[in-house]
Amino acid sequence: MRPPDPRTVRSRDAALASARELLVEQGLAGLTHGAVAMRSGISRATLYRLWPEPTDLVRATITWHIARAQSPPTGDLRADLLTELTGTRAMLHQPASEQAMRVLIERAAVDPKFAEVKESLYRSGTRVVRSILADAVTRGDLPPDLDVDLAVDQLHGPLFFRRLVAHRSFDLDYVHAVVDDFLRCRSTKTPHQQGPS
Amino acid sequence: MRPPDPRTVRSRDAALASARELLVEQGLAGLTHGAVAMRSGISRATLYRLWPEPTDLVRATITWHIARAQSPPTGDLRADLLTELTGTRAMLHQPASEQAMRVLIERAAVDPKFAEVKESLYRSGTRVVRSILADAVTRGDLPPDLDVDLAVDQLHGPLFFRRLVAHRSFDLDYVHAVVDDFLRCRSTKTPHQQGPS
Repeated sequence: MRPPDPRTVRSRDAALASARELLVEQGLAGLTHGAVAMRSGISRATLYRLWPEPTDLVRATITWHIARAQSPPTGDLRADLLTELTGTRAMLHQPASEQAMRVLIERAAVDPKFAEVKESLYRSGTRVVRSILADAVTRGDLPPDLDVDLAVDQLHGPLFFRRLVAHRSFDLDYVHAVVDDFLRCRSTKTPHQQGPS
Repeated sequence: MRPPDPRTVRSRDAALASARELLVEQGLAGLTHGAVAMRSGISRATLYRLWPEPTDLVRATITWHIARAQSPPTGDLRADLLTELTGTRAMLHQPASEQAMRVLIERAAVDPKFAEVKESLYRSGTRVVRSILADAVTRGDLPPDLDVDLAVDQLHGPLFFRRLVAHRSFDLDYVHAVVDDFLRCRSTKTPHQQGPS
């Protein structure tokens, strides 16, 4: 398979950078092919070729936005989980990304295209935490029978519930409390081995 | 203070019963003063006197709906938590209540009246779980330093996250897994004292 055309890669990156700016400034409503064309200088024709449907553009933008926010894990379970969930906290407290999440939650049940975007964002958004947990199991830092799927929900669930359902903001102390309480019950290391908490 | 007029109580109950039917059948969009008047036979004038704003009617209906679904706790921590969260699961899988929740999540950030409804529903919806946890602490079945606020998020969060964010349905086994994992780390009873799991 031939490598991607460098011009296409540059167009795509420039478009996604602009799309992300628009998303952050204006939320989902600002994320249209026309607005991205105007902001990035990439032609509408190119944009429609890359992302035929509006939901394709939404998915690509948010996936790119999430990927840029994710840092490579270090292998320190607690630090890595805190990094990821601190990013989740930031997303839930930045007005445009928070509102985009709320809109996606509402639209997903009535519009199959939005449901697809949502599921794909859920997978890409939780990908790094899953790999952190799986690697920790491999290293023996977490029990071999850990239910990784459930663990993903137990780490993200309280943050999303507090912000989107309880309608309360929360700070980094809360993120620490969620992670530390999760590890307290499951870490195979004794507390003094876990490092400062 | 005089007791409420029995006729007002009857009107209110009849109206809320009809409102709940409409909510279950049609979601939030079906819950209007006009529709409730037609269904219940209670006059619009009475309904507007009881609930001046549409959001007042929404709040009253859902609070009533939640209260009717809640059973008095028995004092058996695990059984009581399972009862409550099984009800939460049912709410998240009944199309109209699930969609109402999604709409409330989306509207709450842009409409202060919906935010108020949401916060009040969060409080009434989690009231019984909070009291179950607080009573368990009093009895010594949970540690005295339990963060009840966090515990509410840890019990509800995974269910809401899986259904509304991950866009996945879940069954009673999942509810059991969430409750049992929560108790595993915190119950002051040894596993054989906790009863069958």
